[in-house]
Amino acid sequence: MIRIGIAGYGNLGKGVEAAVKNNPDMELVAVFSRRDPDSVKIRTEGVKVYPFDKITDYKDDIDVIINCGGSAKDLPESTPAIAENFNVIDSFDTHARIPEHFANVDAKAQKGNKIAIISVGWDPGMFSLNRLYMNAVLPNGNDYTFWGKGVSQGHSDAIRRIEGVVDARQYTVPVESAVQSVRNGKNPTLTARQKHTRECYVVVEDGADKQRIENEIKTMPNYFADYDTTVNFISLEELQRDHKGIPHGGSVIRSGFTGFDLETKHTIEYSLKLESNPEFTGSVLTAYARAAYRLNTSGECGCKTVFDIAPAQLIAQSGEEIRAHML
Amino acid sequence: MIRIGIAGYGNLGKGVEAAVKNNPDMELVAVFSRRDPDSVKIRTEGVKVYPFDKITDYKDDIDVIINCGGSAKDLPESTPAIAENFNVIDSFDTHARIPEHFANVDAKAQKGNKIAIISVGWDPGMFSLNRLYMNAVLPNGNDYTFWGKGVSQGHSDAIRRIEGVVDARQYTVPVESAVQSVRNGKNPTLTARQKHTRECYVVVEDGADKQRIENEIKTMPNYFADYDTTVNFISLEELQRDHKGIPHGGSVIRSGFTGFDLETKHTIEYSLKLESNPEFTGSVLTAYARAAYRLNTSGECGCKTVFDIAPAQLIAQSGEEIRAHML
Repeated sequence: MIRIGIAGYGNLGKGVEAAVKNNPDMELVAVFSRRDPDSVKIRTEGVKVYPFDKITDYKDDIDVIINCGGSAKDLPESTPAIAENFNVIDSFDTHARIPEHFANVDAKAQKGNKIAIISVGWDPGMFSLNRLYMNAVLPNGNDYTFWGKGVSQGHSDAIRRIEGVVDARQYTVPVESAVQSVRNGKNPTLTARQKHTRECYVVVEDGADKQRIENEIKTMPNYFADYDTTVNFISLEELQRDHKGIPHGGSVIRSGFTGFDLETKHTIEYSLKLESNPEFTGSVLTAYARAAYRLNTSGECGCKTVFDIAPAQLIAQSGEEIRAHML
Repeated sequence: MIRIGIAGYGNLGKGVEAAVKNNPDMELVAVFSRRDPDSVKIRTEGVKVYPFDKITDYKDDIDVIINCGGSAKDLPESTPAIAENFNVIDSFDTHARIPEHFANVDAKAQKGNKIAIISVGWDPGMFSLNRLYMNAVLPNGNDYTFWGKGVSQGHSDAIRRIEGVVDARQYTVPVESAVQSVRNGKNPTLTARQKHTRECYVVVEDGADKQRIENEIKTMPNYFADYDTTVNFISLEELQRDHKGIPHGGSVIRSGFTGFDLETKHTIEYSLKLESNPEFTGSVLTAYARAAYRLNTSGECGCKTVFDIAPAQLIAQSGEEIRAHML
């Protein structure tokens, strides 16, 4: 049994807990939280919650820590710290800062003789893997990534910060005609506005100025100004009834060319339709925890990404079994 | 530059030749053929064709041989023989015999200190990889593979063996309602007939008994009897005009569950739309040749499959570049 620890028990931590339960070669050993441990109720019977700052005390009891903190402030500090004492997986998703995070984590993992695998999930993660495979097999062509329909936590939070807003949910929606054009190999050049629209469901305080709020949303730089945005004002009851899930998904599509003179066209598409973003992400992190354990057991150390992990390392079955049944 | 040799110059060998031309870190060094070398005209200027039985003479001039023989009779003999002297890639696709082929190739590659990667292409190959990743991240669920619309060489050949048939082209076509049912997460149980139909375009001799030929096709065990098959008799001119391409493609779809009680549904789909099956397959083989070269250069040997190769090994760019731009 691979002994797993979870650091951070938000939506992602809960997703990892469920994934560990459903992988028969793994067991959850402990959850670490920055909140008061007595206030954190987890679902796995017999497993305890400990303060995050005591994590090193459990060095010999845990094979892999799955670090479920946030990318903005937590992971840049906590993953390197954990990597000195444990094999660790994280879902660091600030694309621009990956090289810096990689270097910091690698230094600590090398020092501790541990394996760290960063930026695991679906984007970065499964989408990145597919971009790489598609580029490797079709080096001449164009990549397209479409996200959604799904909830963007960052955009929902941005709306919540507007004065008079009680709660909000933002869906990123791919423009179907753009997706079809890419699928049909037309290799279009697409602006942000041509690829995605943004649908907002907003609950406001009694008597709030809806016109002002809608205007503030639609003109918000970076988040909404470059997109066609629709704002729907709904009641708190409607939000809780119709928008409580955290679905997401999307597609990576490569349209590429082969042939002596690049005269032949091919399209590769990888797509996800997820009822729960954090549960799926948690499930991906858990598969990579298996790989981290195996690599470290075979003597390797340092920071890796999904690009460095041979697929066979991710799955419980043996090499013989997967060659016989999945190849 | 990675120095490539091609063994066998049929459609697949031609696809590999084009792929090597379009990968700037590779060069084609030689083509080996069992036909009279003078009768084999290749497209790459300045590259020679040699008899296959002289291949060992070029041991020091070639980094990787891409073996483009057929799975039925050629590859089981030729890949182990080549593996003793060269790094080698093949597209062995007789799924049931992969374990045996793996063992034979592994023994020779170990003996020669070379890397062999077998069963590379799209199925086996990219489809297998996706089945593995999907099963690793969603261990609870069901896989579905749909092929087509595309030309099945084996089924086309089976029709050509019928008395009175001049030429034939068989398309495997996925049943759209079955694909939609799987995409929508309905987890159906599907028979062969419910998943694919078979469309045949057949040219017959003057005065041939079309009724008998159609009946022989539709009742042919293994190939057609278990499918809804349509037979269209056309002229040789029509066949050459409308059916000269070798398109193929298909989808691997996994419908799986996460959540503490597996209450949450997800769908992952990988799909290919290929204008030329041999050119795409050749392009995949060429990417794995890069991996074989790198692994052997770093001291590894033995037989591998796509499951054993870390994605980063397949692409020309460095680890830093792919982390910065594709993750």
